[in-house]
Amino acid sequence: MESYKTLEIVRKNPDSSVFHLILNRPAHLNALSLDFFVEFPKALSSLDQNPDVSVIIISGAGKHFCSGIDLSSLSSIKAQSSSGNSDRGRSSELLRRKIKSMQAAITAVELCRKPVIAAIHGACIGGGVDLVTACDIRYCSEDAFFSIKEVDLAIVADLGTLQRLPSIVGYANAMEYSLTARRFSGGEAKELGLVSRVFGSKSDLDNGVTMIAEGIAAKSPLAVTGTKAVLLRSREVSVEQGLDYVATWNSAMLISDDLNEAVSAQMKKRKPRFAKL
Amino acid sequence: MESYKTLEIVRKNPDSSVFHLILNRPAHLNALSLDFFVEFPKALSSLDQNPDVSVIIISGAGKHFCSGIDLSSLSSIKAQSSSGNSDRGRSSELLRRKIKSMQAAITAVELCRKPVIAAIHGACIGGGVDLVTACDIRYCSEDAFFSIKEVDLAIVADLGTLQRLPSIVGYANAMEYSLTARRFSGGEAKELGLVSRVFGSKSDLDNGVTMIAEGIAAKSPLAVTGTKAVLLRSREVSVEQGLDYVATWNSAMLISDDLNEAVSAQMKKRKPRFAKL
Amino acid sequence: MESYKTLEIVRKNPDSSVFHLILNRPAHLNALSLDFFVEFPKALSSLDQNPDVSVIIISGAGKHFCSGIDLSSLSSIKAQSSSGNSDRGRSSELLRRKIKSMQAAITAVELCRKPVIAAIHGACIGGGVDLVTACDIRYCSEDAFFSIKEVDLAIVADLGTLQRLPSIVGYANAMEYSLTARRFSGGEAKELGLVSRVFGSKSDLDNGVTMIAEGIAAKSPLAVTGTKAVLLRSREVSVEQGLDYVATWNSAMLISDDLNEAVSAQMKKRKPRFAKL
Amino acid sequence: MESYKTLEIVRKNPDSSVFHLILNRPAHLNALSLDFFVEFPKALSSLDQNPDVSVIIISGAGKHFCSGIDLSSLSSIKAQSSSGNSDRGRSSELLRRKIKSMQAAITAVELCRKPVIAAIHGACIGGGVDLVTACDIRYCSEDAFFSIKEVDLAIVADLGTLQRLPSIVGYANAMEYSLTARRFSGGEAKELGLVSRVFGSKSDLDNGVTMIAEGIAAKSPLAVTGTKAVLLRSREVSVEQGLDYVATWNSAMLISDDLNEAVSAQMKKRKPRFAKL
Amino acid sequence: MESYKTLEIVRKNPDSSVFHLILNRPAHLNALSLDFFVEFPKALSSLDQNPDVSVIIISGAGKHFCSGIDLSSLSSIKAQSSSGNSDRGRSSELLRRKIKSMQAAITAVELCRKPVIAAIHGACIGGGVDLVTACDIRYCSEDAFFSIKEVDLAIVADLGTLQRLPSIVGYANAMEYSLTARRFSGGEAKELGLVSRVFGSKSDLDNGVTMIAEGIAAKSPLAVTGTKAVLLRSREVSVEQGLDYVATWNSAMLISDDLNEAVSAQMKKRKPRFAKL
Amino acid sequence: MESYKTLEIVRKNPDSSVFHLILNRPAHLNALSLDFFVEFPKALSSLDQNPDVSVIIISGAGKHFCSGIDLSSLSSIKAQSSSGNSDRGRSSELLRRKIKSMQAAITAVELCRKPVIAAIHGACIGGGVDLVTACDIRYCSEDAFFSIKEVDLAIVADLGTLQRLPSIVGYANAMEYSLTARRFSGGEAKELGLVSRVFGSKSDLDNGVTMIAEGIAAKSPLAVTGTKAVLLRSREVSVEQGLDYVATWNSAMLISDDLNEAVSAQMKKRKPRFAKL
Repeated sequence: MESYKTLEIVRKNPDSSVFHLILNRPAHLNALSLDFFVEFPKALSSLDQNPDVSVIIISGAGKHFCSGIDLSSLSSIKAQSSSGNSDRGRSSELLRRKIKSMQAAITAVELCRKPVIAAIHGACIGGGVDLVTACDIRYCSEDAFFSIKEVDLAIVADLGTLQRLPSIVGYANAMEYSLTARRFSGGEAKELGLVSRVFGSKSDLDNGVTMIAEGIAAKSPLAVTGTKAVLLRSREVSVEQGLDYVATWNSAMLISDDLNEAVSAQMKKRKPRFAKL
Repeated sequence: MESYKTLEIVRKNPDSSVFHLILNRPAHLNALSLDFFVEFPKALSSLDQNPDVSVIIISGAGKHFCSGIDLSSLSSIKAQSSSGNSDRGRSSELLRRKIKSMQAAITAVELCRKPVIAAIHGACIGGGVDLVTACDIRYCSEDAFFSIKEVDLAIVADLGTLQRLPSIVGYANAMEYSLTARRFSGGEAKELGLVSRVFGSKSDLDNGVTMIAEGIAAKSPLAVTGTKAVLLRSREVSVEQGLDYVATWNSAMLISDDLNEAVSAQMKKRKPRFAKL
Repeated sequence: MESYKTLEIVRKNPDSSVFHLILNRPAHLNALSLDFFVEFPKALSSLDQNPDVSVIIISGAGKHFCSGIDLSSLSSIKAQSSSGNSDRGRSSELLRRKIKSMQAAITAVELCRKPVIAAIHGACIGGGVDLVTACDIRYCSEDAFFSIKEVDLAIVADLGTLQRLPSIVGYANAMEYSLTARRFSGGEAKELGLVSRVFGSKSDLDNGVTMIAEGIAAKSPLAVTGTKAVLLRSREVSVEQGLDYVATWNSAMLISDDLNEAVSAQMKKRKPRFAKL
Repeated sequence: MESYKTLEIVRKNPDSSVFHLILNRPAHLNALSLDFFVEFPKALSSLDQNPDVSVIIISGAGKHFCSGIDLSSLSSIKAQSSSGNSDRGRSSELLRRKIKSMQAAITAVELCRKPVIAAIHGACIGGGVDLVTACDIRYCSEDAFFSIKEVDLAIVADLGTLQRLPSIVGYANAMEYSLTARRFSGGEAKELGLVSRVFGSKSDLDNGVTMIAEGIAAKSPLAVTGTKAVLLRSREVSVEQGLDYVATWNSAMLISDDLNEAVSAQMKKRKPRFAKL
Repeated sequence: MESYKTLEIVRKNPDSSVFHLILNRPAHLNALSLDFFVEFPKALSSLDQNPDVSVIIISGAGKHFCSGIDLSSLSSIKAQSSSGNSDRGRSSELLRRKIKSMQAAITAVELCRKPVIAAIHGACIGGGVDLVTACDIRYCSEDAFFSIKEVDLAIVADLGTLQRLPSIVGYANAMEYSLTARRFSGGEAKELGLVSRVFGSKSDLDNGVTMIAEGIAAKSPLAVTGTKAVLLRSREVSVEQGLDYVATWNSAMLISDDLNEAVSAQMKKRKPRFAKL
Repeated sequence: MESYKTLEIVRKNPDSSVFHLILNRPAHLNALSLDFFVEFPKALSSLDQNPDVSVIIISGAGKHFCSGIDLSSLSSIKAQSSSGNSDRGRSSELLRRKIKSMQAAITAVELCRKPVIAAIHGACIGGGVDLVTACDIRYCSEDAFFSIKEVDLAIVADLGTLQRLPSIVGYANAMEYSLTARRFSGGEAKELGLVSRVFGSKSDLDNGVTMIAEGIAAKSPLAVTGTKAVLLRSREVSVEQGLDYVATWNSAMLISDDLNEAVSAQMKKRKPRFAKL
């Protein structure tokens, strides 16, 4: 496995297809640096292509999940987009490209065929929220707290929260939390639907999420990746278009060894075993 | 009323315009058979055209609401789509048509102008969830339990759950329940917003839902069917387009005998009486 | 400030940029009259253009927030759309224009760049719900109650509830409440996500919402109005389109005096001060 | 083959898979009657399901292709929608359903998997234009003439012309021809892109179109029906969504006996032969 | 009729419902000034509400139709958006609002229910193209010439050409003309579909367009304005949504005095006469 | 400049910012090989990032522009997607990914900020049409001929033609050419709007297109790339959304050194000179 400055990839159990992608700058509370935006999509792409991987869990090293965008990267972007050129037009054009490339780094989570689960403890602030809203499922520990903090930096959040949060917690909640930037607990996140479950402690979280991930990893990888792809597509097309899409999808993928194995295992009341993808 | 192999239509009270459409293969836990997919849209269409009908309640005979798609229909589809032709292209084309025709059977609930309410007890699994997400309102009893089970059969759910569930419970919940296939109770379904209320027992459910249905049936059928139609359309157009649509709708339908009757009844503090539709 | 027949604009604190827009026909339970539909967009537009205003709170004078559309306006519309012309086509065309102009009055809330918060006590019925669903955030007191009442008047709600409510409370809840017209409490509204918080009394509500509004008013007006605009746009485009939009937005507005001020204040642990917009 | 009052189905050559669907009320200039709207979708559905059919040519018996909607059906619809009920709301609701059912009859052309080609001679007026714009390809003879005549009957065209014509001739041309209702020749229709070619006479048209249809009928039916389906879908989704759709489609259908046969025939410089669909 | 600085409204024939809206700054080649953007939507709105008006013809006084945006307005906007505030964020925000208000002035053509026809002679450059692409039909004289000139001013055209031209001349032509800014003649505009006909001279143009407009003015105003509205809506919804929309529209407006009058006139072979709208 | 197996990048004039990207497998009639799909997006990306480049011209070495997809790549894809795994589901999944990656190679033309012009001579068949429809402008020589040939290989075209051609030549033309696969000349391509101009010979084409490209290269690169970006976005959003998008875009980029330079040059009647981008 490659090595990264801002990330660590860990396979806790050599027999398992659950891999951990860990934000690994604990001294900076895992703030998202310019390096992160380069390394993160690379790491996800390599995990996606690795047939040993079925499910990816994203977590943070140290006391917090993620404190948001690194202020020094913000300064650097600001400096870069004005550096050397006093032209407001060109400076805007450069800044727009820079933002789009950072957005693409986060969107890499959706391009990864395999489920990506966020396991959140401690702070999940600003860019951290952008990151987890792009994940497929989110869990947190009781000590977790969240804030869509950008407005307090005089910034309109631009890495995905404003686009993805409404379909998770509803449009009205997205507005209230984005305008007030108020901090909310893991429990409130559960009520909102932002996380699917709150675990008592960081270690409960790690164990619990690993167990859930193993459960998904034991299922047909064709069905799991297909479900993710079809749900992502559903988000932006009409019901009629979505139904037609999944009918077309299944005309290609329904009849598979996995289906035979699943049916056979169910009849014989044994665990199914599926080939890698 | 016509007779069906997989369904029963019951009008419990001859003075009432509430009709019950009952999944009626209790010995098979109301599993959805190939017959069902033929009969169900026919039954709904006849109820829609019947002016005596105002509201339709779907429930299941026996111990469970619906155990999902009948495994024998799945086998038959699989066999049919490969039968006689070894051509992968033609087999896919046939399978796609088959899936689309089964989808159309479920979508018939939305084509029915009149409200369709699901009253769920016991198991509501796989295809059962596809069915109830197409209904207009859902209620359940305390013993009800749900599972988006398809992924455990190595299948991407293709009868509507992945398209309709996100607008009911949010995109994130839809993802978590679809990927984990985990079983959830009626109470959890209520918290999610999948059902609107949980009743203590199957008989409470029957009585309670009938009472709610009678309440809707006593309202203007023009307003009730119009509200359903406009909300369905809202789901897929922008707010601006939706507003224009309902303005056009009401330019045709606002001024009606029902409006006069409703206003007059309200002034005289009596119950309004509306003509059939 | 201009004076209105149906509204009052109040600035409770001359140092504050929080303005109150009060529905002011308490003798009619703030029913929405034809005058209201003329005055309301004018009032919002003047507040939007007034650089002294940062946040707008909408509330109702007297015992209730809003009892819905004024029955006399309904009659007047009905009369007007048939008056003098027996032609069903022309009558429909006139009615359509009338409805669209009333819709536009409500949509004025979204056209206002600045956040509009609804503070609801007592009844919020029919047209009142149309009004508050167009607001950016909603709070209520414990005595508040709601009903999407139109169907009981034999009307398909046409001022925005059917278009905006689904993205706030989910499509299924919108259907159930619209079809049953049932009354629900502030507490239920909170569970649904229709309001963000329930306050104990009308005066708690007033104080609490004012405090929240002051909190927003203390933030960068560029970031606050930008967040509203971007979230509104997100509601109707795909995630990819929304990301591209906000990247373009921020290429214009990210680098601002407000950003410098916010960063500098944060470093110096002092309150930031932003210029008006 | 079934027999119809308003249509005739002809297979001119027993070895050919090209079928002719002929508007067959020459005494009424093939005006579209209520019977037509019932029979037409039935006929298309039976041709679609008949594996002997590869391509369908629609033409008109007698001197003209189609003179538009039958005035007597219009009267009958008008009468029916007011008959027995003086209620403007119910009358509108009935009329809306009636129009939608006539629209569905025309849309049946798009639901038919197999290519449908219009061969137009003489008049193609009003409803005739609605019909041919739903076809996949259009050819005409030199004596053909067209008019989007509805506005001269004081009607907004409601059977598809206003929805489908813009994507064929551009939005501006659609507006000009619809507002002026002016008559235009086959030559002008060719320049507009409404027809793909103008033949010298009715018999040239018949021969020419049959030859073109035979050409399509000789190709892989999987590829032909797939191309129609994918292009229809492209019409309403973004390029990115359309690309993803066709990739999914081809993951199911690309690898087929037809592909092998086509490649092998090309190498051996012989005509390919494909199985029926 | 009100008087305008930049426009003149002329009714050439007191018996006619065709009105002329003339760009009237010939000394400035009818360049679009800041005054124009204020007066133009006002003029269109008053014509729309005036029941004596059926059709509006836009033309230019003097030698040219329109030379584009007035350079002095451009400077003024530039100055205004930087004036007094050195803040790049606020300057961008102000500029964005300014552009949107100018766009709204052009879009007023589409908000006008009645057909708006452009009669173009001489130059139609830059902003002139934005203006005419918003019109419903365009005609020109042989001396007319066009250029999407913005790119030569180092500007991305922002008043509508890039949004409306593709649906008129196709996406590829829009790209080529916008990137090259090359001048093209009336004849080329006709080939492209940008204009519907080229007249020999300015006076032929005036007579010809007036005659066409009178033709439209003699038709049912309900059908004419309905056709415009439905076609505009078709531009942005799917075929299925568009069909449903027009069915709803016609359920309100099909059955009208105009329909009776049109049918009766046709039977009696006399000219129909319709009430004003 | 990097070197490629299937491409050559040529800068004919060291003072020019027009670069030529040449399909360079003349011995294979520039058939699109698997190497091409890897190299092409890389080459475009490097040209996009190179500030010396303003405009890119794509042409073909040898006698033809492009004979379509290389049959050996097709076989290789076919083999690969079945190789080693007999599982139909996994084989489909692999094939889908392969197609999507080839599509992405073609879409790279749209992701390139700078205008990409196709200069077509000789054959432009199958995949060649997919390629040129993704370009911003197309020109050809008189000897050019085209065919949407896929259906003759029993394939549904899946590299973009079916998605992009309708917006260039209209939906109906796209259908006719795709279903018949018939060959058409450069002249016919011009009439259709597929190419913007036909040059007499290959060398006229080269000179002519270079001259046009130099014309674009002499304009403001901010305005040119902005126009491309905004038009691409217009293709998939409503007019209202597109207008809002370009207003936001120009709030960032309108006020630039290029605008000052363009205005100043125009006043002084000299050629403007713009900085690189």
